[in-house]
Formats: sequence, structure tokens, C-alpha cells
Amino acid sequence: MKNNNILAVDAMGGDFGPSVVVPGALQAAKQCGAKILFVGLEDKIQEVLDTLPDDLKAVDYSIVHASQVVEMNEKPSDILRQKKDSSIQVACRLVKDGEAHAVISAGHSGACVACGMFIIGRISGVERPCLATIMPSKTTPRLLLDVGANVECKPYHLFQFALMGAAFAKDILEYEEPRVGILSIGEEEGKGTSTVKEAYDLLKVAQHLNFVGNVEGRDIFIGDVDVVVCDGFVGNIALKLSEGLAFSLTHVLKKELTGNGLLPKIGAFLAKKAFLKFKKKIDYAEYGGAPLLGLKGISFVCHGSSNKRAIESAVLMANTYIEKDTHNKLLNSLKENEELTSFARSV
Amino acid sequence: MKNNNILAVDAMGGDFGPSVVVPGALQAAKQCGAKILFVGLEDKIQEVLDTLPDDLKAVDYSIVHASQVVEMNEKPSDILRQKKDSSIQVACRLVKDGEAHAVISAGHSGACVACGMFIIGRISGVERPCLATIMPSKTTPRLLLDVGANVECKPYHLFQFALMGAAFAKDILEYEEPRVGILSIGEEEGKGTSTVKEAYDLLKVAQHLNFVGNVEGRDIFIGDVDVVVCDGFVGNIALKLSEGLAFSLTHVLKKELTGNGLLPKIGAFLAKKAFLKFKKKIDYAEYGGAPLLGLKGISFVCHGSSNKRAIESAVLMANTYIEKDTHNKLLNSLKENEELTSFARSV
Repeated sequence: MKNNNILAVDAMGGDFGPSVVVPGALQAAKQCGAKILFVGLEDKIQEVLDTLPDDLKAVDYSIVHASQVVEMNEKPSDILRQKKDSSIQVACRLVKDGEAHAVISAGHSGACVACGMFIIGRISGVERPCLATIMPSKTTPRLLLDVGANVECKPYHLFQFALMGAAFAKDILEYEEPRVGILSIGEEEGKGTSTVKEAYDLLKVAQHLNFVGNVEGRDIFIGDVDVVVCDGFVGNIALKLSEGLAFSLTHVLKKELTGNGLLPKIGAFLAKKAFLKFKKKIDYAEYGGAPLLGLKGISFVCHGSSNKRAIESAVLMANTYIEKDTHNKLLNSLKENEELTSFARSV
Repeated sequence: MKNNNILAVDAMGGDFGPSVVVPGALQAAKQCGAKILFVGLEDKIQEVLDTLPDDLKAVDYSIVHASQVVEMNEKPSDILRQKKDSSIQVACRLVKDGEAHAVISAGHSGACVACGMFIIGRISGVERPCLATIMPSKTTPRLLLDVGANVECKPYHLFQFALMGAAFAKDILEYEEPRVGILSIGEEEGKGTSTVKEAYDLLKVAQHLNFVGNVEGRDIFIGDVDVVVCDGFVGNIALKLSEGLAFSLTHVLKKELTGNGLLPKIGAFLAKKAFLKFKKKIDYAEYGGAPLLGLKGISFVCHGSSNKRAIESAVLMANTYIEKDTHNKLLNSLKENEELTSFARSV
């Protein structure tokens, strides 16, 4: 069961810090056999460990002390310059120095991106790493990227997001020939911003990519597409809008189901069961972290509000990513399209 | 009950054409007392009228023949040039010539925008008219604009969308001091694209505007905001994504509620009632058409898949818009901020 993978987990990240990160990561380690390095304030981590049952701690783990804590309102550039001993910086350095194979953090996502770019470093030829998130749908999950690492993108950035997203979806989501679409406001070629149109032209001639053209907003959930590419501004709005709408609809429907005065107890009972299943189906926690693609090392960023289950999922996905050597698949896909990317960058 | 408002209704628009447009508009006329001018193929409109009960037809209406029909795959510019006798062009000319006070169409939305801009014409000082849509939420409905008329926007376009959206929300949605936000990827000032940041600076100093700053994707449904401003690319994706997600979630939850084998008949019964109420709450048809703001005349664009209820709502809203003289409130708000707009345009 035990494997040789070493995962650096930012224990201080997220709304709940070590209290959910530590048990979540241990639970994952128990399942996959990887070694966990908890990075953060040693005493805080130990405090949580002391409360946990022994069987959960019967895995390979250790603590790497990091004295500084990142606040959510700090600027990524300030964190990078001034918080050299923060948990996210220390965790990224472990990856850079080869002491860990991947970093997982539910902390400040801007800091995760900045530390990923400037400490772990970018893959040669990749200007912009991007955050990819797995969106649940009526049928199979879809990958949406970028969801916030890059506010303004050039066509060849979107092109590389598509290449990396497809490689990830193929390997990790196990889609044989993932259908890749670019997010726009009409299915026909020629719809959208000038950036989208230029990226479309590149994607059309990409090597080994199943490009299906433009897709619309609704297709993220109900269209014939597996990987949806957009810039980080649009992607972040799409992601947060989905969270808000799912929350809002669930609330409205729950109220209707349980509060109508007609057999309310049976209604509430049935609704509770249905909502639990429903929640599992649409729950982001099931998919855990968003991979930060385009770095020399492996990094997963989790939602700030991650619960234990989300941390566990992210750690398991990072482990799978290492086991399957997904990183090299990404490199290959980028390499096969190197000339095209260089050409696009030069025009 | 009868009033002096004359509404030009594009009878050929939408997925279902006159079969839903004609009864929907008559139903609205019955309620509000406006006169309806049905524009389109006379025989097709008459055919539908012949099937309708007399009491529905006991309103003031007439038919204005238009010999050409617009196909959904035609380019707006081609429609404008080559289909001078299409129902949307003829209806817009009725408004331009003062023979109707407003046009309502569920047809090709690109054609509605193009004909609105080039036949009805823009308000002096408004470069870009925009489409505003009413989004249902957990609490009160919100106005989102632009949802597709302008793919790429300058900061002062967004600024004018905000002014017009606020005037509309105040008058039609009856919000005393509508809270106006600009859609971005973080609440803090300084987050977002350069266009968003520049628009933010303008909105901060706008006259008579309750600007609340940046809002995020989730705020469209659950945030403290009434009017959400964005460019037409982002807005269109947000709108269609919401439709796709609402459809997808409803599907998943319905399946869970009715198919779990536990008291399935009671579950199905309770679910059906809840879903009907739920549908009413989130149904876009309840709000009907999207106003095209910034034109010299009044234009409402309906969803292509509009049902009778949606057409009825749009016609009623157009009538209210005339009655309340909302158009002049828009003009006032634009005028109060004229200098600021001119300044922004010149830099």
C-alpha cells in the first residue's frame, strides 16, 4: 500500500486551517500510502494531531515548521517578498528542492499561483500557468480552465491551456479523446472576442487534440464537451456563479419541498435523502483541488472553504497525478505543439 | 382599461412563431389595454388568430404584413441589408416612424440589436445599446447587463450600462436606490481586467448612482446587489451558464427525489408540486423580455424559446415601460453623467 510519493500539505491554508487539513490529508494518506509533510506552525499542527485517533495517524507523516501565516487580504506579491517563511512558500520550496513531489494548499489562491510561478517555476515555453477546476454535471464531470490565475490572456495562452487541460482530462478523468471547446457566445466559428477567434484558429490546427470548436455557457453543464477553455476572468466568474446558483436553487427548492404544509414530515424525510445524494453529485468537495497546470512541479489549489473531504480528494488526486506521470503527458502535448505556439507568440 | 399605447409585436420571432407569440401578446393586451400590431406574414398570423377563442380577440389589434422571414443562421448585417421587409425590420420602422411606441421580438437577437441600432437609432451620446436581463434569485430579482449586444466594451460603455440599468431597476423593478455592482473576480477595488478597473473609477464618481463596487459571480444570485454590470461576452456566458446549470440541477434532483424506490409515489407527488413552484420562482418566462437599453425607442428582446407566458410578460413590461415613462428616466441619468462620459471617451 505504501508508495514513495511525498506530498507537501500547507496545513495553515483554508478557512479552517489545520483542523480540517490535517485529518483530511491523513485520511488520504491512509488510502493511497503517500507520505505527508505538514507545513506550518508546528504547535498548531501538533495540537490537531493530538486530538486525532491513532489509526488515522498510522501513516507516514512529519511536520515541517513554517513560522509565518498568510492572511487572506495580503497581496500575492507582498506574500512572495515578505513572507519567505510562510507555509505556502516553504511547501513550494520543498517541491522545488525535490523533497516533495507535489504541494497541496487551500490557502490564498493568488499566493499559491505566485509561489508556484516564482518558486517552483514554469515549464519552459509556458508563460502562464492556469488553474483548472472539475465541474460536476448531469452526466460526466468537465474540466474548466483557467478559473482565475490569469485575468487577461493572449490567444496562445488559451491554446496552451487547452493542451494542458486535454492531457489532464485524458489521464486523470480517463476520457479517451477529451472533447475540447473554447468558451464563447455562439457555436459558430467567428463568434466571440478577437482573442477567442485567434485561439480558435490555433486550436483548429493543434496536434493530437480533439477540438470541437466554440461552446456556450450552458455547455459547461449540458453540452457535448469535456474540457472548456477560457481566460481566468471569465472562468472565475463562471465558477463562482455556479456555486452561487447551486446554493440558491438548492435553498429555494428545499424550502418548497419541506415547507408546503402538505405531508411535511414525509416531504422533509424524502427531501433529506434526495438532497444528500444530490449534494454528493454536485459537490465540489468530491473533486477536491484545482490543479495549477504549467509549472515544473505539481501543485493543487483547494477552495478556501474546503472541508476534510475536499482536502482528502485533492491529496488523492495529487497522488494519482504522480503515479500516472501526468506531468510528462502535459509536457509531451506542449512539445508536440511547440512550433505552433512559438509562431502564435511571434505574431 | 384601454390605453393609448401601441406595441409592435414581431409575430414571426422565436422557435414557435405566431402560434405562441399571437396568443401571448393578446393575453397581455387583455390585461393592460394596449393596442397590438402583429408584424409578419399576414396569412400565418390570421391562421393562428382563427384558432383562438373570441374573448381573447376582444382587444385592439391589427396585422401589419411583412413579406420576409429571418432565419436564425443569417448574419445580422445581411438581415439589415437584404431583408428590408422582414418582420423585425418592419416592426422597428413602426417605432422609428412613431406608429408604435415599442417593439417586442423573440426573433434573432443579433438582428434585433442591429435593427434597433440602425433603424430606431441610438440615444445621442450612447455608442453601445445593451441587452439587460432579469435574473431570478433566492430573494429579489437582479438585473444583469450587457448579456450579449457588445462582445468587447470600453470602460465608458460599462459606465453607461450601469446608468441605464439603474434607471430601469428603479422604475421597473421598483428598487428605491438600486445597488449597482461591476462584475469582477474579487470584491476589492483593483481586481479585474483593465477595463473593469477603469469603469470602476468612473462609477465611483457617478452622479446619483448607488455604486457598491466589484461583485463576484456568486453575487448575481446571493449577493447584496441589484444591478450587475459586465460586457456582453461575460454576460452572455453568465446567462447561458445559469440556464444550463438550473436545467442540470433540476434534472439531477428530480431524479433523486422520484427514483429512489422509497415511497416513490408520495415522493413524486410532493416533488411535482415543489417543482412547479420552484419553476415559477426561477423561470425566466416570468420576466419575459430583455430590454435593449440605449435606443431612441423602446425594444424588448425575448428568448428564442419563449412560451406564451414569456411573450405575455414581455408585452406587459413594455407597456409598463411606456406608462412609467422609464425612457426619460434613462435619458436623465445619462444626461446627469454626460460630462463624465465625454471625459472618459476622450482619454
